[in-house]
Amino acid sequence: MSLDPGLRDRILQSVSDGFDEQIAFTQQLVRMPSLRGHEHPIQDFLFRTLRDRGYAMDRFVMDRAAIEAHPGGSKFSDQHSDAPIVVGIHRPNAEAGRSLILQSHLDVVPEGLHDMWSDPPFSARIEGDWMFGRGAADMKAGAAANIYALDALRRIGLQPAATVYVQSVVEEESTGNGALQTFLQGYTADAVLIPEPEDEMLVRANIGVLWFQLQVRGVPVHVREMGEGANAIDGATRLIAVLREIEADWNAEKGKHPHFEEEDHPINLNIGKIEGGDWASSVPSWCNIDCRVSIYPGRSAEDAGREICERIATFAQQDKFLSNNPPKIVFNGFFAEGYVLEPGSDAEAVLGRAHEAAIGAPLKSFMTAGYLDTRVYALYNRIPALCYGPVSRNIHGIDECVSLSSVRRITQAMALFIAEWCGIEPVPE
Amino acid sequence: MSLDPGLRDRILQSVSDGFDEQIAFTQQLVRMPSLRGHEHPIQDFLFRTLRDRGYAMDRFVMDRAAIEAHPGGSKFSDQHSDAPIVVGIHRPNAEAGRSLILQSHLDVVPEGLHDMWSDPPFSARIEGDWMFGRGAADMKAGAAANIYALDALRRIGLQPAATVYVQSVVEEESTGNGALQTFLQGYTADAVLIPEPEDEMLVRANIGVLWFQLQVRGVPVHVREMGEGANAIDGATRLIAVLREIEADWNAEKGKHPHFEEEDHPINLNIGKIEGGDWASSVPSWCNIDCRVSIYPGRSAEDAGREICERIATFAQQDKFLSNNPPKIVFNGFFAEGYVLEPGSDAEAVLGRAHEAAIGAPLKSFMTAGYLDTRVYALYNRIPALCYGPVSRNIHGIDECVSLSSVRRITQAMALFIAEWCGIEPVPE
Repeated sequence: MSLDPGLRDRILQSVSDGFDEQIAFTQQLVRMPSLRGHEHPIQDFLFRTLRDRGYAMDRFVMDRAAIEAHPGGSKFSDQHSDAPIVVGIHRPNAEAGRSLILQSHLDVVPEGLHDMWSDPPFSARIEGDWMFGRGAADMKAGAAANIYALDALRRIGLQPAATVYVQSVVEEESTGNGALQTFLQGYTADAVLIPEPEDEMLVRANIGVLWFQLQVRGVPVHVREMGEGANAIDGATRLIAVLREIEADWNAEKGKHPHFEEEDHPINLNIGKIEGGDWASSVPSWCNIDCRVSIYPGRSAEDAGREICERIATFAQQDKFLSNNPPKIVFNGFFAEGYVLEPGSDAEAVLGRAHEAAIGAPLKSFMTAGYLDTRVYALYNRIPALCYGPVSRNIHGIDECVSLSSVRRITQAMALFIAEWCGIEPVPE
Repeated sequence: MSLDPGLRDRILQSVSDGFDEQIAFTQQLVRMPSLRGHEHPIQDFLFRTLRDRGYAMDRFVMDRAAIEAHPGGSKFSDQHSDAPIVVGIHRPNAEAGRSLILQSHLDVVPEGLHDMWSDPPFSARIEGDWMFGRGAADMKAGAAANIYALDALRRIGLQPAATVYVQSVVEEESTGNGALQTFLQGYTADAVLIPEPEDEMLVRANIGVLWFQLQVRGVPVHVREMGEGANAIDGATRLIAVLREIEADWNAEKGKHPHFEEEDHPINLNIGKIEGGDWASSVPSWCNIDCRVSIYPGRSAEDAGREICERIATFAQQDKFLSNNPPKIVFNGFFAEGYVLEPGSDAEAVLGRAHEAAIGAPLKSFMTAGYLDTRVYALYNRIPALCYGPVSRNIHGIDECVSLSSVRRITQAMALFIAEWCGIEPVPE
């Protein structure tokens, strides 16, 4: 049931009234370099922010054993963050509406080479409509929007008429174990919304992601006897070609996967990092390659991982060097299945109305080829999982930035969505 | 003129008499992990060893400006060692014979992965005829042989009847600038002998060596937009293929180069080290490859370096990604020409007789495909430069080791060589 037009306009105006403060808060988040493992201060900052607003608070760490026992658990490594997960809880006077989770993640991906950035990566500089910085779009603007959408209701004396969990997680960029831990902890609701930078569209289908490291070892020799020795870097290069074949084969199957048929290249295999050898004059005895590959929804990480291992092993068996030095594959991060948001849910209908009221055009949906925490809610909580957020540029890249006018629009849409989904009641005196 | 058979036998016996001590001294050297930049304590140890024997001592550091101005100077980098060079000087009572330089280097190459070694890399463990350890063969056994060949003469009351410089350098494994600095410092003689592990053979011809780093940069993006971005690791992989073409072309020219026609693969290009990207899920914005390539004697490093730069640039111009992100080539180590030891020198004849007396077979010569400091003496001092040393296994590799019976034989040959080349006189009371 649509919102009353007068109320709708008051909510839209209230978001605008708080928007300067929302931008300043977003800048505070961007200025904290919350790289993997370094999210402790930002999660504490978020804890204080929510507590100061009067939310009931919960804070917990990941339970490695429980995550590893769950089919949606990704792989741990030495780099896995142990920063806490923070939940702020709003409970209404009367539980009249539908409950909601507003999730964000505050971990960010590495900055890349600083000298390629126009400004320092954590500057949060604003130029025209754009706020720059690693994580500005992915997803500190969204994390702020979760809080300020609720603030906008309060500003006009309203609050959701249902329980709302504001959940701030880590490890979204590497395992997705933070979101999974909220599920294992028992948090659930009638729907979830995650304002990732999705260009004001709703994610209809989302790939799964696997991370793995290929490890090649081989006996090194003096370069003068190179023919007799083994070159681990050259061996690794040959394995990259095998991975590219797997990628091509998987892309060739796109016709079998609804929502992916029209995509040019739905499956991306990224050779993200390579390290090998000790110096120029020694034949390298080792080479490690860190890879990320996507899989279609409906395929388990287990099954895709098995195919990768088998095809690498088959190639290695007929390679002179690799057959004597079989490469090792270590799954060391994402081990996550994709999901499809089935059309027709009430939650999507409510978001559609909110979007149209805030933005003036029908809500579009699309397939996205990156990992999303919504998979936890879609696959395990089994609730409508809405991923929807602002316009961005260069996420994970150089000069990442987010459109501030878009942040305002999606915050308005979120506030309207909350008001209609949860219902509203007066803030108690 | 051959040595008197009685004297010859006394010298051979004297080397044997001192050999237990020589092995123990070699082990002391092997146990010091004198990696690049970490040769300070071992050079000080060698300084004390020579001073305690009564040699006049000199010690000096490299003169970067002088080295860079010399055509034989290799390139400096942040990794360049600043350990001193040590010279022990023997002066005879009467300068009757021909002077000699006995050179060694005490820097060693990286150990590689420790878990591949049977024992820790600096154990100096002896098993049967073999002493194991990084640097045992290359060339701490030779460094000890220089000192103990002279000791063997002293043990029977004799010393060279000409000036002998015992020179211990660093940077042999990365630039060759240590040997060049001895030349720039003014050290020279009528011949030089360097007991590198050459399987009891004499080096007839030796390649030149260049080190360079290929640097690829490119704008990174989120993997979901990978097609739009640039992958520096993939770009680097394509450049490796160009380098392999250069290598093949240079090997195809072997017929034009005396001493190289019969070699299966005289030119080795080694991709020694690779590093790129930040983590699995970001498209890598950078990749550096450290390479080492050899060149035929008679070709300048300058000329070979120019060809490499031109061919990389030509390829890059027609590559979609690399043309927008031209790779950079930084020469960061060896920039050294090769040499040929012309047959027929007196020094070679004397070594031939010494070898035959100690080892019982004619001295063979061969082409070696690794850098040697003898190039400085051949090209710039312009003196007979003899590179000749013990049997080894796996130099620069895992479980490097040197044959102790061979070390004894070549020390005997060296003592006989010194006695005949320099002549002998009684040690003064």
